[in-house]
Amino acid sequence: MTQMQEARKGIITDEIKSVAEMECIDAHKIVKGLANGRIVIPKNIGSKSRPLGIGKGLKTKINANVGSSSELEKVEWEVKKAKAAVKYGADTIMDLSTGPEYEKVMKSIMKSVEVPIGTVPIYEAGITASKIKGAVIDMDEDDMFGAIENQAKAGVDFVTVHCGITKDLISKVKDSNRIMGIVSRGGSFLAAWILKNQEENPLYKNYDYLLEIVEEYDVTLSLGDGLRPGCLHDASDLSQIQELVNLGELVGRAREKGVQVMVEGPGHVPINQITANVEIQKTVCKEAPFYVLGPLVTDLAPGYDHITSAIGGAIAASAGADFLCYVTPAEHLAIPNIEDVKDGVIASKIAAEAADVAKGINGAWEKEVEMATARKNFDWQKQFELAFDNEKPKKCRARNQTSEDMCTMCGEFCALRLVRDNI
Amino acid sequence: MTQMQEARKGIITDEIKSVAEMECIDAHKIVKGLANGRIVIPKNIGSKSRPLGIGKGLKTKINANVGSSSELEKVEWEVKKAKAAVKYGADTIMDLSTGPEYEKVMKSIMKSVEVPIGTVPIYEAGITASKIKGAVIDMDEDDMFGAIENQAKAGVDFVTVHCGITKDLISKVKDSNRIMGIVSRGGSFLAAWILKNQEENPLYKNYDYLLEIVEEYDVTLSLGDGLRPGCLHDASDLSQIQELVNLGELVGRAREKGVQVMVEGPGHVPINQITANVEIQKTVCKEAPFYVLGPLVTDLAPGYDHITSAIGGAIAASAGADFLCYVTPAEHLAIPNIEDVKDGVIASKIAAEAADVAKGINGAWEKEVEMATARKNFDWQKQFELAFDNEKPKKCRARNQTSEDMCTMCGEFCALRLVRDNI
Repeated sequence: MTQMQEARKGIITDEIKSVAEMECIDAHKIVKGLANGRIVIPKNIGSKSRPLGIGKGLKTKINANVGSSSELEKVEWEVKKAKAAVKYGADTIMDLSTGPEYEKVMKSIMKSVEVPIGTVPIYEAGITASKIKGAVIDMDEDDMFGAIENQAKAGVDFVTVHCGITKDLISKVKDSNRIMGIVSRGGSFLAAWILKNQEENPLYKNYDYLLEIVEEYDVTLSLGDGLRPGCLHDASDLSQIQELVNLGELVGRAREKGVQVMVEGPGHVPINQITANVEIQKTVCKEAPFYVLGPLVTDLAPGYDHITSAIGGAIAASAGADFLCYVTPAEHLAIPNIEDVKDGVIASKIAAEAADVAKGINGAWEKEVEMATARKNFDWQKQFELAFDNEKPKKCRARNQTSEDMCTMCGEFCALRLVRDNI
Repeated sequence: MTQMQEARKGIITDEIKSVAEMECIDAHKIVKGLANGRIVIPKNIGSKSRPLGIGKGLKTKINANVGSSSELEKVEWEVKKAKAAVKYGADTIMDLSTGPEYEKVMKSIMKSVEVPIGTVPIYEAGITASKIKGAVIDMDEDDMFGAIENQAKAGVDFVTVHCGITKDLISKVKDSNRIMGIVSRGGSFLAAWILKNQEENPLYKNYDYLLEIVEEYDVTLSLGDGLRPGCLHDASDLSQIQELVNLGELVGRAREKGVQVMVEGPGHVPINQITANVEIQKTVCKEAPFYVLGPLVTDLAPGYDHITSAIGGAIAASAGADFLCYVTPAEHLAIPNIEDVKDGVIASKIAAEAADVAKGINGAWEKEVEMATARKNFDWQKQFELAFDNEKPKKCRARNQTSEDMCTMCGEFCALRLVRDNI
């Protein structure tokens, strides 16, 4: 049975107990959320990952992508990045490797971290086809479903599958006024395949078969937005929203089978459209957990897209998004290094915490009060403990530090000291 | 005559022409905005600073604070930081020096950069009193107004003055459940003075005299929020809002005299309260340009407060704030170094651009489209040109770069290439 099927029978599993404890909320609420699909716990039946709840009423979670490419593949480096991401607070890791040793990277990461692992199986299908048959678009349906089954067997906890890109939609994108067209890698694999073969997307056409595979392993589906906008100009257009509508339909069908499902969202979105995007997802997809990539709120800051996406992520999560995919400073430029991973995770943690305060999530406000109290008390040690990263602020404060009781910013004219001593 | 007084006579000055050109909007709109106080052009009659418009319908501007403290004062270093801030896009510089050579720092910066300069004259009053009479609270009214006049004479374009902190308000803050009390440095100088002397705030009581001084030099007032919250817990409380109400009254009195005025805002504010803060400021202060410090949306990220404040700043500016004060990664920890200044300015530029897209400000959308087009065309050179910072992304892309036509992120499986070659 999948966890959703168990929850529908009212069973409180160890996973649910563990999630309830982490969230400080009643286990019955988790059962209810799992049963009706507002909450997922991505955990393959064969996986030893730490149970993690994502969805309504729970803390906003963050994912860190790692993975190799054909141009840069060092297995141990990807493992180190995954470990660094978890150290700084990533709740899940997605391995997006597309280098020749993609399988080794995935398995090494699974052995090295305890958090749930996600993948995009269409990469395996495309890479294999490219290697054996000559091109990504030479993959066939068996390659696609075979890859999903392989990764489910390997113990992956959630998979991104671009089931909502239909043949009809691809022709509309081609004729649209988009600047960037399709920027989702998995989406582009499928779009190219559909056009070359002039056939319907197999993951859409044979969605029931897909559901059978993932049901067997209780792999959580993350319905990918293959037509997500790749720049502000393309945001919230007909193609994006039509795909979302398709995903809404597919959410319903997954739930009927007892398959856990979340929905992915954009991407690059102007601030004034973010809340609308979240609200439409929540209605169309029947409150399925919403997993957003960014969104980036300006395209003018390559090198700083951890910041452009922290802004969008904080707004999206405040409006109800449940799961933020981090973006690193290397986005649009290169494979991230460990420093980029750290910066990406921390920016995403900031967005999640700020949103959790705004949403009134358990524990978020209390931590803010603790930090404020430590600050008022000049308790630097406590401030560093509570900080998302304590290395950087400790080092910064130590620069030219003169006394425990002040910092170089204000020196003797410190407002807090003036108030403490005079008011 | 002040620029506001000239505008009320319908005079289109060179400053107005220059601002109109920079903003790509009609000069008559600037005249109207200046006349009714929705726009300010902070420019001392004795100043050679580049004219800059701040306010309704104009691009969101950003300020960078520099300045020494008693613990760390190197005049040349502060000048270098000011230059770096302007290089990366700061529209104004505030010199907040409180070290013994504060005057030298200010004058050196004024000689070195072309942007408008702001200061907080109460620092001069407090430092001088501390040096000569023994303590900040030993300053007298003459010290306060003398400092304002000194700085006006020196050519400062705008001054922060905490006129809204009244004796009555200070007693309320003392009895409130605030954790951080008063965190504004200028605010704490005045609050301590009021309590020690048991007298009304001279800047409030003798506000007309203050107006006379600044009118003579056309120094723009920036009405400081001395009771701004110093942590999320204290946000939007009675003290903060009462001070805002006082400032609203003072805005009206400044406008009557033809004195240009803006209003400062918080600080540390949960996301869900930011829009309300902006809207209340806009109504209570009759659409005076709103200058916000941050706001920081979580207190848990010392070392990364350029990000916590970019989130808050983007939301505030989207809701109507006109002027963002940057926050650097060193906030709450130390005096920023040049790297911190750069990071702070760029984070703030991101917030301002994202907000300008959301507000539909002239030129913001067009730049986004240009960047998207460059990206689609694999035109790396153009992307770097359009970027807020081109050094960091250039370096990042160069890491292990293999070809002009791809980056290490996706290598041969690049969505853009797949689409270009197959769709």
